Amino acid sequence: MSAVILDGKAIAKQIQEEVKEAVVKMKQERGITPGLAAVLVGENPASQMYVKMKRNRCAEAGIESFGYELPADTSQRDLEKLIAELNANSKVHGILVQLPLPDHIDSDKILQAISLDKDVDGFHPINIGRLAMKGREPEFIPATPYGCMVLLQEAEKLVPGFKISGANAVVCGRSNIVGMPMSLLLVKADATVTIVHSRTKDISEIIGQADIVIGAMGRAEMIKGAWLKEGAVCIDVATVKVDDPAAPKGYVWKGDIEFEVAKERVAAITPVPGGVGPMTIAMLLKNTLHGAEVALR
Amino acid sequence: MSAVILDGKAIAKQIQEEVKEAVVKMKQERGITPGLAAVLVGENPASQMYVKMKRNRCAEAGIESFGYELPADTSQRDLEKLIAELNANSKVHGILVQLPLPDHIDSDKILQAISLDKDVDGFHPINIGRLAMKGREPEFIPATPYGCMVLLQEAEKLVPGFKISGANAVVCGRSNIVGMPMSLLLVKADATVTIVHSRTKDISEIIGQADIVIGAMGRAEMIKGAWLKEGAVCIDVATVKVDDPAAPKGYVWKGDIEFEVAKERVAAITPVPGGVGPMTIAMLLKNTLHGAEVALR
Repeated sequence: MSAVILDGKAIAKQIQEEVKEAVVKMKQERGITPGLAAVLVGENPASQMYVKMKRNRCAEAGIESFGYELPADTSQRDLEKLIAELNANSKVHGILVQLPLPDHIDSDKILQAISLDKDVDGFHPINIGRLAMKGREPEFIPATPYGCMVLLQEAEKLVPGFKISGANAVVCGRSNIVGMPMSLLLVKADATVTIVHSRTKDISEIIGQADIVIGAMGRAEMIKGAWLKEGAVCIDVATVKVDDPAAPKGYVWKGDIEFEVAKERVAAITPVPGGVGPMTIAMLLKNTLHGAEVALR
Repeated sequence: MSAVILDGKAIAKQIQEEVKEAVVKMKQERGITPGLAAVLVGENPASQMYVKMKRNRCAEAGIESFGYELPADTSQRDLEKLIAELNANSKVHGILVQLPLPDHIDSDKILQAISLDKDVDGFHPINIGRLAMKGREPEFIPATPYGCMVLLQEAEKLVPGFKISGANAVVCGRSNIVGMPMSLLLVKADATVTIVHSRTKDISEIIGQADIVIGAMGRAEMIKGAWLKEGAVCIDVATVKVDDPAAPKGYVWKGDIEFEVAKERVAAITPVPGGVGPMTIAMLLKNTLHGAEVALR
């Protein structure tokens, strides 16, 4: 049996279309254009590329984006001052501070300075705290785990008998931006959640019992296809560049999960690339639209 | 083999003694007496008893306690006003709002109103958010999970070969005040953590693989002794009153774990009562002392 391939690219496109329509409607009916401020400190090429992609996708969806490119030696104070200005700016409904920030900046304080109503990345500690707490909901869900949840909901439609509620889910990795918020979202969705990481013993055994596997470690094909339970649903967040002289570009992209073997065993799996990646930006657009809705409340 | 019984009562007493000595020293050297404000709304008898116990133990440790007993119909606004006054009161180093609050009160807003420097219960969403985040530490750890961690550290000393780091830990229950913060603390301590709850399938199988079992469901002897792995370390947070006509008082206290069977299989276990219960108040005293230290910073 061959797995259902969860087509993140197509789903992301659909979400982007929905956002675009809602943006048009908001402009017509309320005279408001959702706006995203993207703050970049320093000249990390990967960060520059991510910000550029996010702003391009905003433009496609009719969201106005404001770029703030600051030199690497920007002071904590100046960055906090900019955040305060953006908090007060009524044209800005979402504030995105591209991570990582330079070492001399206290990232914690910066993330905490963002208004809860504009925290479209969902990294404010109050947002994360609410994610961890029963009976409370964050205003914004961090984009990558949010995208993974949408892919799991898609799997519920496509895989007979698969349900997130009650499933045994294993989240591989415990980062602040993916692994931990993903684990908290899955607990909220009534999955039984196991968080595994570099210190875990018996990782193959634990993964062998999982109905849901989330790869969020960034270690190419560390999760062997043969470990996976037949019928599992696999979401691979990792995108690792691996040298391959046989490939046209001299490299290929790999996820945490050994895709070629896995896809013959499991019920559903995301490809790398084209799975979680496109979903992340789509959910950021959705969060920015939500920011504009919050401002209208 | 019979298990090591983790004597929470004795360890709590020792912690209380250490707090008492530190309080004496603080009075002598800095002229400051740590102070705890205990806020109780309404006349729930269990809450009244908890607050009374906490205040008695404060008195024993030389901590000044200030009781605020408000009628059940206290308004949100008046309660927030009291919290603001306590935040500003330099004699108060810790603010404890006994939960549950009456239904007409927005507990979330009340907990969020407590100054982070005085949040000795550790329930402010920022505190919980920091608990969930790598590289960040909450100012205060919620007392019950904090007490459980101390008992696990005690087990590290008493059980040959037992280490929290790398252990498979199963936390039964996902409440805001015990299960969830306990899970987050165990992840921080490098355990592999599984969070199980009422929707979990195969609970006996999951528990059978655990090196650490935390019972935090409040369901008398729901976790059977025969399920447990030999050599496991068990911490039982639950205290459930169970009718027993044969008992002198007509009832007995039970934990989540079937103690009599478990203690013949596992490496270490807490008794109920006399395990986690006494630790909770001891850690609250320790947190209040820490609150006074924070004020001196």
